[in-house]
Amino acid sequence: MQLHLSTWQEVETYLKRSTGIILPIGSTEQHGPNGLIGTDAICPEVVAKGLGEAADAMVAPTISVGIAQHHLGFSGSMCLRPSTLIAVMRDSVISLAKHGFDRFFFLNGHGGNIATIHAAFAEIYSDISLEAWDSKRPIRLTSRNWWDGKGVRELGKKLYGDDEGDHATCSEVSLTQYAYPESIKNVNFESRAPAYSGIYDADDYRRRYPDGRIGSLPSLSTPEHGRQFYETAVENLTVVYNDFLKEDR
Amino acid sequence: MQLHLSTWQEVETYLKRSTGIILPIGSTEQHGPNGLIGTDAICPEVVAKGLGEAADAMVAPTISVGIAQHHLGFSGSMCLRPSTLIAVMRDSVISLAKHGFDRFFFLNGHGGNIATIHAAFAEIYSDISLEAWDSKRPIRLTSRNWWDGKGVRELGKKLYGDDEGDHATCSEVSLTQYAYPESIKNVNFESRAPAYSGIYDADDYRRRYPDGRIGSLPSLSTPEHGRQFYETAVENLTVVYNDFLKEDR
Amino acid sequence: MQLHLSTWQEVETYLKRSTGIILPIGSTEQHGPNGLIGTDAICPEVVAKGLGEAADAMVAPTISVGIAQHHLGFSGSMCLRPSTLIAVMRDSVISLAKHGFDRFFFLNGHGGNIATIHAAFAEIYSDISLEAWDSKRPIRLTSRNWWDGKGVRELGKKLYGDDEGDHATCSEVSLTQYAYPESIKNVNFESRAPAYSGIYDADDYRRRYPDGRIGSLPSLSTPEHGRQFYETAVENLTVVYNDFLKEDR
Amino acid sequence: MQLHLSTWQEVETYLKRSTGIILPIGSTEQHGPNGLIGTDAICPEVVAKGLGEAADAMVAPTISVGIAQHHLGFSGSMCLRPSTLIAVMRDSVISLAKHGFDRFFFLNGHGGNIATIHAAFAEIYSDISLEAWDSKRPIRLTSRNWWDGKGVRELGKKLYGDDEGDHATCSEVSLTQYAYPESIKNVNFESRAPAYSGIYDADDYRRRYPDGRIGSLPSLSTPEHGRQFYETAVENLTVVYNDFLKEDR
Amino acid sequence: MQLHLSTWQEVETYLKRSTGIILPIGSTEQHGPNGLIGTDAICPEVVAKGLGEAADAMVAPTISVGIAQHHLGFSGSMCLRPSTLIAVMRDSVISLAKHGFDRFFFLNGHGGNIATIHAAFAEIYSDISLEAWDSKRPIRLTSRNWWDGKGVRELGKKLYGDDEGDHATCSEVSLTQYAYPESIKNVNFESRAPAYSGIYDADDYRRRYPDGRIGSLPSLSTPEHGRQFYETAVENLTVVYNDFLKEDR
Amino acid sequence: MQLHLSTWQEVETYLKRSTGIILPIGSTEQHGPNGLIGTDAICPEVVAKGLGEAADAMVAPTISVGIAQHHLGFSGSMCLRPSTLIAVMRDSVISLAKHGFDRFFFLNGHGGNIATIHAAFAEIYSDISLEAWDSKRPIRLTSRNWWDGKGVRELGKKLYGDDEGDHATCSEVSLTQYAYPESIKNVNFESRAPAYSGIYDADDYRRRYPDGRIGSLPSLSTPEHGRQFYETAVENLTVVYNDFLKEDR
Repeated sequence: MQLHLSTWQEVETYLKRSTGIILPIGSTEQHGPNGLIGTDAICPEVVAKGLGEAADAMVAPTISVGIAQHHLGFSGSMCLRPSTLIAVMRDSVISLAKHGFDRFFFLNGHGGNIATIHAAFAEIYSDISLEAWDSKRPIRLTSRNWWDGKGVRELGKKLYGDDEGDHATCSEVSLTQYAYPESIKNVNFESRAPAYSGIYDADDYRRRYPDGRIGSLPSLSTPEHGRQFYETAVENLTVVYNDFLKEDR
Repeated sequence: MQLHLSTWQEVETYLKRSTGIILPIGSTEQHGPNGLIGTDAICPEVVAKGLGEAADAMVAPTISVGIAQHHLGFSGSMCLRPSTLIAVMRDSVISLAKHGFDRFFFLNGHGGNIATIHAAFAEIYSDISLEAWDSKRPIRLTSRNWWDGKGVRELGKKLYGDDEGDHATCSEVSLTQYAYPESIKNVNFESRAPAYSGIYDADDYRRRYPDGRIGSLPSLSTPEHGRQFYETAVENLTVVYNDFLKEDR
Repeated sequence: MQLHLSTWQEVETYLKRSTGIILPIGSTEQHGPNGLIGTDAICPEVVAKGLGEAADAMVAPTISVGIAQHHLGFSGSMCLRPSTLIAVMRDSVISLAKHGFDRFFFLNGHGGNIATIHAAFAEIYSDISLEAWDSKRPIRLTSRNWWDGKGVRELGKKLYGDDEGDHATCSEVSLTQYAYPESIKNVNFESRAPAYSGIYDADDYRRRYPDGRIGSLPSLSTPEHGRQFYETAVENLTVVYNDFLKEDR
Repeated sequence: MQLHLSTWQEVETYLKRSTGIILPIGSTEQHGPNGLIGTDAICPEVVAKGLGEAADAMVAPTISVGIAQHHLGFSGSMCLRPSTLIAVMRDSVISLAKHGFDRFFFLNGHGGNIATIHAAFAEIYSDISLEAWDSKRPIRLTSRNWWDGKGVRELGKKLYGDDEGDHATCSEVSLTQYAYPESIKNVNFESRAPAYSGIYDADDYRRRYPDGRIGSLPSLSTPEHGRQFYETAVENLTVVYNDFLKEDR
Repeated sequence: MQLHLSTWQEVETYLKRSTGIILPIGSTEQHGPNGLIGTDAICPEVVAKGLGEAADAMVAPTISVGIAQHHLGFSGSMCLRPSTLIAVMRDSVISLAKHGFDRFFFLNGHGGNIATIHAAFAEIYSDISLEAWDSKRPIRLTSRNWWDGKGVRELGKKLYGDDEGDHATCSEVSLTQYAYPESIKNVNFESRAPAYSGIYDADDYRRRYPDGRIGSLPSLSTPEHGRQFYETAVENLTVVYNDFLKEDR
Repeated sequence: MQLHLSTWQEVETYLKRSTGIILPIGSTEQHGPNGLIGTDAICPEVVAKGLGEAADAMVAPTISVGIAQHHLGFSGSMCLRPSTLIAVMRDSVISLAKHGFDRFFFLNGHGGNIATIHAAFAEIYSDISLEAWDSKRPIRLTSRNWWDGKGVRELGKKLYGDDEGDHATCSEVSLTQYAYPESIKNVNFESRAPAYSGIYDADDYRRRYPDGRIGSLPSLSTPEHGRQFYETAVENLTVVYNDFLKEDR
């Protein structure tokens, strides 16, 4: 179930059988010459939708903009400050908890978000601890990247070998091609992008990785590969999500 | 053009012909027994997409959660605090301005957001004034509701008369039915919802408007009506948007 | 009763008969060549005092500085950021609520404050909802502009026609002349100020409206007119305020 | 000159001869059985007005609500959090600095504000240092209490001896009686209030000082005494203020 | 007892006999040619350790960086904004209060911190008052400077007369020499530093006091003097601390 | 060199040969029955001191309190909210950057801090990008845990095998025993602590890990082991630190 396509009565009914919710969280940032700026939001959104169907789970609207200061050297990249994203996550969790949701599963699409997601969890737990704020059951917060499900990395390795890369990866480009086939960009790449050598800030990033990619050769991406990534991710995250719900403490 | 479906080079090219951008902003909140919780995000998102095509304008990802404390009495409603939404809008504008965007057109789908959108504009202008922050050209911020385009209200009046209402209106339910025909909910309504009599907080709202609607009878909504609202809104907002870009001071 | 001229025992006694309080809120910003910089604080302060007497209502000290970034192009204009004013209003409401006040009637003198006042209401209600903060009765927040009382606009139209204008209006200048006759400024105006054509930021404002006025010819203002505005506003706001107190939900 | 009773052109003219400004800052809190809740705002406001006339100095609107958590045990007391007052002072200073003001003289009426005023100064200087924010001349911030002028404490000692006290003092009650003779409260006091023995929070304050006074017997206060305090304070603060302006570094 | 050298079971045992805790708070800022940058953190840390032993009191880790914008003109000085230090103190107090600590004794080493420490106390009490936050017994917050203990100033006067000074004082330099004899710096001073003449910001400070000292001649400092300061401070603060614990309201 | 034991002239001299600085950052939280509450601050402080000597690097004062909400179920644990720690790190970096420091090497002692440290880096870089704040050379921020140096984990494995554990590990207890031999606690352990099975909040932690340890048997710890960990860590981090300084972009 997708929250934005449900009515409040449907949510009320859902809450009688489950208090879990999946929150896709991404980023809006350059993904090289043939990667969509929305890649990191599209991937968890698409996988979350599939996971919601497979696990009969509620899916919240995607948080589309994330921590991407280091991509500001490329046109169109947007970013939130970490303190802003923490506030967004806190308000989202607390308002959903008013209705009885207490198992929050953030499905992330952007490596750069991971630190701030965990900082936000600590901030929310601190609010609960320090302000004596109550919910019916204890709030439980967890996060997974869409590529964390067993088999996804293996598939990338099998399909692309070392050309998979670290940013604007072949796998994520494939997944967006599967999701938005009408937006596939035809671009010639001369070669694999420079390998990962660290990142400081936006200027440093642009200097190290001139066209935005890190270590990838996403001309190898295809929508059919995307379908395989989608199915593998959904299948395995369904297990992870259900395990999360089972923890009853 | 949709930012999330573009590459950074496409954005770079776009910026040579225009520095305008449309930012849909909505809310995730109950819309009565047959209205989708995402109604106020879906409507501006759909209209913004059409407007982007009609006006050759860039469209940013939708800000999906807004100011909706007063809907927290109904399951599934989410809200940001105004101070959080101000931070989100500020970071979004400032990061886009780094690339040269300087005409920001927020397309809003939720009456409850209007005050905070204008507060955010004042906050951003204050940052610029008080911190001597620069951009190539002065930043210009404006907002319109999707129903502000000439002809939309008239169409609602013609189709529904007094049954249009003030929340979970027939027109917005129609527009979401046009956008998501597979999510149309079949609900029987005994009568038009209670007329608007003020709103304080969430408890007060639920007491005044027991099923969430205000003054509307959205069993009258149809996808075909939605198409008419869509086309009318896009046509007229195109004029408004182009006028905004023309202001050269 | 004015809070600042009362003792705490007098307030304690007042609270036994009413839990309402009027909070004047204004701005400190240019009002053209013959308008006082304090106009938008003086007007609600003076009307609130009269309303307090007419309705036996407590009147809090005036919040004198407001949202006025767009006036910073003119010497002497002061402003708060919206986030600062939200904090001021929140602390004021919450500290008064400790004593049992629960009907807060903000009487506003500045159009530019309206958005932030409503954003502050949403922030305060969110604090209450999300932090489970309690008061004896639910907190109710409302606001009116001093010129909202029935008859005030009509009086302006009758006295000045189209010369009333939109900033540094004839009516508000008259009201300050009634309140501070010793501070009347004698200024010759060649003509009515340029009509309203939009406002972005401070630089834009100064360019559009070179002497600060918008659409007005306040050489028409007189203290006697001010007296009429005062009496009309107080009479009609008394009805509005008493209706607000009557809502018992 | 009072800023709120001036026009922007008058301020522009003033700035050619001086860049100094006096900002009265007070509190809205109980002052015992015959002291006005506004005492700590009224006193600096009245003295600032006189000082403005004596020194040809601009006087800003009074910041009426201050740091008074410890008075919340008595009806009608209001408070700001220190973080809120710091933001108010920062925005006020920075917006006035846009016009060329650079000598800020806060005239304080409340002992409880002193710490936060100095914290705000450090915050503003940190903003300047750390954000490389510029003004034509360096910003200089200072503060004095209205009773700091030479001779004021001596006068209190002479008139009241040990009955002057530490809160709801005879001198401040006299000064408000001089300023608002129509608001003099007739109250019988059995005796001098308990001497100062420390203050923690609001509950502790009320327990130690049951009627709100500390160490004072303000039945001794008279409007004529108030006039003497006023004149002494103004005379001596004029010297202090002029010395402040002379520091040219 | 030092918190950082204890186990949680030892703290649990301690809490059965006392709920008091000493929190050293200092600054990291220049102290002239022979004073250590850590002087203002070292002094309260060392005295707190002695006081902890003498009074059987728990000692928290030192807050080492404080309010020192005015020292940024000298290499190595660090500072927090007051709003940051307030947050640090609030989180520290609130997290310790979860365990039952309710008597917080801040032992300060830096005059520039005093205002912000008291602002933080007001902020914490406001949180308690305004958010209805509970602890077993009321929280009590107090602070003392390490030199406040009876006898310390007298000792400085006796040893150094007018050469004691106001910053990089002979007494504090002696105390750090006692604490860190291996870090004694041999520096020749031509003369006593310029006397205190006020401080605005960092640039102003450096201009007034070119080598960082104010009014002192710390070539007079010796480790043996440091020992005397240490013993005097500990002896007298033990009385102060025990009196603080005795206040049972 | 340790900043707190240096004079400002010594720092000025240091800056001519290096612009790097090491900032130890830890936590103050339970470490089981024989682990010190200060373990996570002591370890990086001690290693940083050694690293400073080995690499001729400046070492800042330790940030002693960190992200430890999940330990609040055990007496004596303290925590900062992530938003507070971000502010502390931002102010520390920005004030040091005023003097010319531009290579910031945070040496961390607490796994729970890692996410927030990286969030703080993104916040600081965002401030730089979005506010156009300048330093002589670009600011570079990095962090390492004290146990990241090559060989440390291997040593733990060799000495303790699977008894090393994940919290209150044998290695960190050994390192604190080496640093503070007078504070070694003699405790009998029946067995290794429960293995890591996830952590949500403080209540959950206490339930899963009743005496605070995770997976360790720190009765195996010795000061001599501590010396080996110290030397291994310093040796290897010296290489890492020098590599960091060499990156010249």
